[in-house]
Amino acid sequence: MPKQKSPKQPVKAVAAAHGEPIGDRPKAACRVALIGFGTVGRAVTRILCETVLGENGDGSLRLTHICNRNVERKKQAWVPNNVPSDVIWTDDFHAVLDSDADIVIELIGGLSPAGEIVRGALQAGKSVITANKQLIARHGPELLQLAGAKGVRLEFGASVAGGVPVLPALRTGLCGDRLHGIAGILNGTCNYILSRIESARIPFSEALEEAQARGFAEADASEDLDGGDARAKLAILALAGLQCHVAPESIRARSIRTVEAVDFDYASELGCTIRQISRADLKQDTLFAEVGPSLVPVSSPFGRVQSNQNLVLTSGKYGGDMAFLGAGAGGDPTAVAVISDLKLVAQSLAPGNGRKGGGEGVAAALLSPETSCDFETPWYLRFLVRDRPGIVARLAQILSLHQLNIDAVLQNPGFDKAALPFVITLEPCRDSQLRPALEEMAALDFAIRPCLWLPILR
Amino acid sequence: MPKQKSPKQPVKAVAAAHGEPIGDRPKAACRVALIGFGTVGRAVTRILCETVLGENGDGSLRLTHICNRNVERKKQAWVPNNVPSDVIWTDDFHAVLDSDADIVIELIGGLSPAGEIVRGALQAGKSVITANKQLIARHGPELLQLAGAKGVRLEFGASVAGGVPVLPALRTGLCGDRLHGIAGILNGTCNYILSRIESARIPFSEALEEAQARGFAEADASEDLDGGDARAKLAILALAGLQCHVAPESIRARSIRTVEAVDFDYASELGCTIRQISRADLKQDTLFAEVGPSLVPVSSPFGRVQSNQNLVLTSGKYGGDMAFLGAGAGGDPTAVAVISDLKLVAQSLAPGNGRKGGGEGVAAALLSPETSCDFETPWYLRFLVRDRPGIVARLAQILSLHQLNIDAVLQNPGFDKAALPFVITLEPCRDSQLRPALEEMAALDFAIRPCLWLPILR
Repeated sequence: MPKQKSPKQPVKAVAAAHGEPIGDRPKAACRVALIGFGTVGRAVTRILCETVLGENGDGSLRLTHICNRNVERKKQAWVPNNVPSDVIWTDDFHAVLDSDADIVIELIGGLSPAGEIVRGALQAGKSVITANKQLIARHGPELLQLAGAKGVRLEFGASVAGGVPVLPALRTGLCGDRLHGIAGILNGTCNYILSRIESARIPFSEALEEAQARGFAEADASEDLDGGDARAKLAILALAGLQCHVAPESIRARSIRTVEAVDFDYASELGCTIRQISRADLKQDTLFAEVGPSLVPVSSPFGRVQSNQNLVLTSGKYGGDMAFLGAGAGGDPTAVAVISDLKLVAQSLAPGNGRKGGGEGVAAALLSPETSCDFETPWYLRFLVRDRPGIVARLAQILSLHQLNIDAVLQNPGFDKAALPFVITLEPCRDSQLRPALEEMAALDFAIRPCLWLPILR
Repeated sequence: MPKQKSPKQPVKAVAAAHGEPIGDRPKAACRVALIGFGTVGRAVTRILCETVLGENGDGSLRLTHICNRNVERKKQAWVPNNVPSDVIWTDDFHAVLDSDADIVIELIGGLSPAGEIVRGALQAGKSVITANKQLIARHGPELLQLAGAKGVRLEFGASVAGGVPVLPALRTGLCGDRLHGIAGILNGTCNYILSRIESARIPFSEALEEAQARGFAEADASEDLDGGDARAKLAILALAGLQCHVAPESIRARSIRTVEAVDFDYASELGCTIRQISRADLKQDTLFAEVGPSLVPVSSPFGRVQSNQNLVLTSGKYGGDMAFLGAGAGGDPTAVAVISDLKLVAQSLAPGNGRKGGGEGVAAALLSPETSCDFETPWYLRFLVRDRPGIVARLAQILSLHQLNIDAVLQNPGFDKAALPFVITLEPCRDSQLRPALEEMAALDFAIRPCLWLPILR
């Protein structure tokens, strides 16, 4: 077939209409320093080299520094092809902050020294791109204030859901709506472990060991399993989408450690599976929010999410429900989010654009709502008991005293009577109604441990 | 529960870090004129009144004109609450173009006079927001060039997929990837009609009449049914996501008019349903693109899309596959996209931002690839014949002569022998290999009409 090469004429037109100066390309390259050369940092470097640096670019971006502890060892281990020879490799982030870099990409994660680096860069008049969910969830508003005061930009599109462009969408195409709800599967480790328990019906501990062996879970996976990671992401989504400033610690997180294979058997009988769900609903001045394992219908979008995918659902007053699905982790997808932020910031800094900062708005007004986990839902209660006559009657009595209505009792055969798992589901009630009954039931002599209680999300 | 009102202190910080001037609010309101007071125009007006105009806003936006033919009649029929009393209602779009409006929202659709309005507004130094897919698909690059030359902005986030923020996501969070494929369900009318044929097993003509009666299809629904609407949207997605400048007419469109209830029976036997799918794959210098009814697995994202939803899937070299799902049409969701564009443009025009145009970039370089519909896929061929012995043997002979491999032959009992529908599925082959065989088979004396041929997308 005859191939036809692009006539380049329309190029400038399109670029110009979206902000670049007509006629002349930017004269000086935008200088970019990278701090953190782990999985994401390496992916960012490689993709930048393949797409916008050196021969593959238009000269508008220049990579000036790659900074990491023991950078020489890192450099010896692996360096992408085509890293420009004039990049400065350094252990010393202070040198980067003192340099003439225009933009710092922070990819080391955690609160320290990442916090000092981001603050230092902003103080020094540099724009910052970060994927650091903990830092943004805790200090986002304060850091945005600092960036504003310095007339520079702080972008964090990679901090939630990896490559899934949900934060950019919240800040652009959905900013005309009034969102009131956000829910998502935001943690790949939990999704992997729960999916493995589901498919292989193995114990939680075995699924965790497998995830650790395959690199899907860290040696200390508490942040993932116990919901710390997901609630930081939920706090960022609440900031960007619901204009709510909430501390991640104010969001209740339930661990997935108590979910076992038998729960997937019982969930399946209810047409459900179990996923770690993060959800936030803004009602008047209260943000209902929590993170934790939940029953979701097998046929729902949540039930179908694959191991490393993230799914985010938003609910708006005018636009209704939207869903965003894609690779929620991994070097390359996360690097796409970082590089997208980088391109947009670099464009806003380009000569002729007449201002240093600028761009799309998060919110005209931030709320600081009270947070609550007092959702009203149906519930799944899974007991583990030393079997004897009268157990269900005793539990039913307690539930009845607390005005809680039983929807179903599920008890499969074949279990050891000395440690019998069975399930009671409840009709919708508030979390706060359920808790006193749970405490009372946990104290019963036949209970081997407190029951596992999971919301059922329809 | 005790409610706590927002401390407003963080507000400026967040706004400022994303581009607004520190300290002072914009002094002069951005003046916005609306042309087109149909379903979307009314929704835009109502939502603007509820969220950003008058008492509900911060004074940064002002609605100056509402323009429509016979505007007095429109005004008498329905006006949202709280429309500011100083809005000028007019029939005369020239008066709007001659006014001091900063931004014109064009919502009348079609090529004329919308084209004159958009060109005139840009020429007059006004930024333009439009939902006009036909205009952007045909004249997008030229109009963007004009906007660039005038230093103003042209935004069209509402032109594809209604309220689903796929265009904003392509231009922000995915701009760091190299996308190579886009596919979607982009036309709600087709989706409604095909879903109705599927669920009620009614003839195409009856489903169309029903859709027309319920307002889901226009009296002349050709643009929807025959793919003209969807291919305009696909051309815009190719522009924004694949950096390809293609005329919509160069994209093959197959009509859904030939799909009948029996096809859903046969598709179901293959684990599939039928949807109008728009798809574009960029391979080297060729854009493979088409729009038309296709078999998709019942359990696939496409198979699960509900009647008025749109779904867009993107495939990127680095970020992998992403999915965007939501309300693809309707006044309110489309208005969200228009108002989102409006807010971002107004912000970029705010005093202190130092430039008139500006914002996010579409593409550094536009390709003008050759377009082709020569996809390689498995195929579904549904014949309608006067039954007699030897038909399958004759068809198999022709297919064999063209080197086409039969995958399955499906023939359900119970049909009239004088007009017997049955199906042959083929193993993957190119469109161009299939076409000569189709012509040969259409000429056979037992064929009541040429067979229906649909790609099977896995």
